Amino acid sequence: MNLIQKINKELKATTRILVASHQNPEGDAIGSALALYHHWKAEKEIQVFNEDKVPYFLSFLPGVELIKHKLTELKRNFEMVIVVDCANLSRVNDNFSKFIEGRKIINIDHHQTNSNFGMLNLVSAKASSTGEIIFELLKKSGKRLNPETAICLYTAISMDTGSFQYINTSYNSFKTATELVKLGAKPNQIARAVYHSHPPARLLLLCQVLATLKFSKDQKRADLTLSQDMYKKAQASPEMAEGFINYLTSIKGVEVAMLFRQVGKNQYKVTFRSMGKVNVARLAEELGGGGHHQASGATLNGNLEQIKRQIRVRVDNLIKRYK
Amino acid sequence: MNLIQKINKELKATTRILVASHQNPEGDAIGSALALYHHWKAEKEIQVFNEDKVPYFLSFLPGVELIKHKLTELKRNFEMVIVVDCANLSRVNDNFSKFIEGRKIINIDHHQTNSNFGMLNLVSAKASSTGEIIFELLKKSGKRLNPETAICLYTAISMDTGSFQYINTSYNSFKTATELVKLGAKPNQIARAVYHSHPPARLLLLCQVLATLKFSKDQKRADLTLSQDMYKKAQASPEMAEGFINYLTSIKGVEVAMLFRQVGKNQYKVTFRSMGKVNVARLAEELGGGGHHQASGATLNGNLEQIKRQIRVRVDNLIKRYK
Repeated sequence: MNLIQKINKELKATTRILVASHQNPEGDAIGSALALYHHWKAEKEIQVFNEDKVPYFLSFLPGVELIKHKLTELKRNFEMVIVVDCANLSRVNDNFSKFIEGRKIINIDHHQTNSNFGMLNLVSAKASSTGEIIFELLKKSGKRLNPETAICLYTAISMDTGSFQYINTSYNSFKTATELVKLGAKPNQIARAVYHSHPPARLLLLCQVLATLKFSKDQKRADLTLSQDMYKKAQASPEMAEGFINYLTSIKGVEVAMLFRQVGKNQYKVTFRSMGKVNVARLAEELGGGGHHQASGATLNGNLEQIKRQIRVRVDNLIKRYK
Repeated sequence: MNLIQKINKELKATTRILVASHQNPEGDAIGSALALYHHWKAEKEIQVFNEDKVPYFLSFLPGVELIKHKLTELKRNFEMVIVVDCANLSRVNDNFSKFIEGRKIINIDHHQTNSNFGMLNLVSAKASSTGEIIFELLKKSGKRLNPETAICLYTAISMDTGSFQYINTSYNSFKTATELVKLGAKPNQIARAVYHSHPPARLLLLCQVLATLKFSKDQKRADLTLSQDMYKKAQASPEMAEGFINYLTSIKGVEVAMLFRQVGKNQYKVTFRSMGKVNVARLAEELGGGGHHQASGATLNGNLEQIKRQIRVRVDNLIKRYK
């Protein structure tokens, strides 16, 4: 019996299930969790937990209103926990590990850093998304996927592949999307909801942020700045700035992109993106932060102009080394 | 024998072919034309014609350097013309009809308004793109598609579906993309080239244009303005403004979006987009222009502020009717 068969066997033998995903959720976390809910809702009692609010661009997903955001709101009679899209249990909630003590844990994820914390661990770093893995699981459950499940899984894959554009977009991502469209996912409706339903405030925020654009002379380094005044002026919230840094990485020739985002009176979060040559994880670590080779960040205290000057010099030096 | 078989039979019996597509080409026009070239290049003499320059975001396509841009550069010994992605022959060039007189014409297109000008007309308005239709044709040619052909067709489909987001994105679009990935198209590499390789000048232009953002009070109408000074200041060319209007249609609640673009000293081109309720074709016609229900445009002479004021009032009245 393979792993998928084992998990489906466990699932069939269980009635009360808790599904949980990570803090600051995006499409893969929410889509994957709700897909499990919709696939099994008729036969099982399924609770869905996510610590944080569902972002506005996912509010169209069927079932979001059922998600519980506090551990205290959950019934404690569940026999099994399915944790989706989390490299480790602390990504769910600081107290989650203690909260689920003694229950069977199924771990479904696509992060390379997954710690295999489950009783059964369905983890594949090759998958574009946890949604892509869950599709394989549900397809072999012996039940046809309903349209709600298809919508949730399609959204998970679409968002984690950046609408089929990121490096993780594979033959299998397209094959899965094709089957999900057949099962009832509507690409245009989902794309409109996810990518093209911004509040006007987001554009007002973007206007201000783009006006701060600064290139290095050779245009290999570019940065943007986001102050708390800008949020106020645009009546915008931080979640609306999601993706702003991509305006810089979409420029030909840019090697390192940065966003300086004010998080306190004299406190700034710097987000780094590298197109591959420069290792921005190392830089972030030196600044007390962390991340991956191509995406990292750190929080710094002090004067904004000084912070910018200092970091720009360091980045320019790193870029020079890879000329 | 069905139409595809007939066309493949004609193709096999022919050695010298001219492939042509429309002026102001985008991904579907260039991708479809070059796909035909790559599929048959080993056995046939194929010339590719396009009146206009290939835009920067398509310059990565294999074979673009072979495209001829003047009729006088073409050898006149071709026996057959394949016209792709054109509703009628005048879309190729004003003199094209005369130029190809006496040759067999194969017409492959997905525009509803296609005039069936060919000897054989492979036209399907249901297809997302001409690329999707050409895939069906080549698949039944008895030859396996090579990677260059797959890259060209994938680009055609990706661009005409807005990276699998527009209303024309169907089950078959995904099915075709899946097969093209298997044949060698790399989604991430193509997306980077097509969507994320903008010249820095484009972002400098966007900054200025977004600063002109104007909403109506109820935020159902939004517009942007692009002056010739802005091109100068950003050292940008008009092709870089492609897609700017989509920033407005991506806002929840916007019913009509407009871009006022200066084209002469006192001359402005107004582009309209409707989210579906308001018929902007009618409005454009009244202003001496034309287009479709959801996308239209007109060119106006006069003072910019007066033009804006007048058109905003008309649009607001149209929106009110559909409340």
